[in-house]
Amino acid sequence: MAAKAGNSVGGVLPHPHVIGNAFAQHYYKILNESPEDVHKFYHDQSILGRKPNSDGTLTSITTLRDINKHFVSTYLKGCSMEIDNVDSQPSHEGGVLVLVSGSFTVPDAMKRRFTQSFFLAPQKGGYFVLNDIAGEVVNQSTESTSISNEVVNDR
Amino acid sequence: MAAKAGNSVGGVLPHPHVIGNAFAQHYYKILNESPEDVHKFYHDQSILGRKPNSDGTLTSITTLRDINKHFVSTYLKGCSMEIDNVDSQPSHEGGVLVLVSGSFTVPDAMKRRFTQSFFLAPQKGGYFVLNDIAGEVVNQSTESTSISNEVVNDR
Repeated sequence: MAAKAGNSVGGVLPHPHVIGNAFAQHYYKILNESPEDVHKFYHDQSILGRKPNSDGTLTSITTLRDINKHFVSTYLKGCSMEIDNVDSQPSHEGGVLVLVSGSFTVPDAMKRRFTQSFFLAPQKGGYFVLNDIAGEVVNQSTESTSISNEVVNDR
Repeated sequence: MAAKAGNSVGGVLPHPHVIGNAFAQHYYKILNESPEDVHKFYHDQSILGRKPNSDGTLTSITTLRDINKHFVSTYLKGCSMEIDNVDSQPSHEGGVLVLVSGSFTVPDAMKRRFTQSFFLAPQKGGYFVLNDIAGEVVNQSTESTSISNEVVNDR
């Protein structure tokens, strides 16, 4: 289930943008359609950051068993999930950092935004999700400024 | 300038949450007050994702010289920047993944939200920023739902 991204002709790896996009498309499709299979993106040493604690930090879900339990107990079927943007960079020791932003709609609820940061660690023939941290979700009633952090750094 | 996080008594490294929080507090303080020093968080192999291209992907800024040039050309003094949340996880080969969300105000403009994903790679006595990807910014006029991705995965 982990993204197959290596082993192309001549051993040249695809660009991290290609890897990140392919991963994100595949990941959210499986998340929507087959939540019972999502744990296959992860390994035993993977860490999911979920459900904020009272102090705002996220609870860590670890071990493949608990990760599977988490996704199996999830109900996402019928949810309309859209990826707005995927950004990826080559990272430490063959890994790929992927930042996804998007929105999703659940029945009888407003569209909401999410961001999710993944670290894809290399494995034979591809990658697995080593880290998965969820960003903040804000209501979609406001207009997106469509600007990334140039407003943070380039004013 | 890189976050000093190792070398505590007995060689025990602080928890990634401590590293991530210390890094974020320090990083945004320097970004606000001394943009000419921000490049010291980075190394030559670091990658910044900035300014979206027409296809929505971010332009990569690489080499310490260009990273420095980027921050020196930045004007952030007088900008009120607030960190809402910092989440961190131990990552690949001694690295730390940090996801920061927050908001900032510039004169005569609405408060805006940002997310930024950092990969801190280990170096002697601490860490440096290997990856830095900016997430999407949306207007702050809407109320935050204060929910991370449990709404994505736990409905």
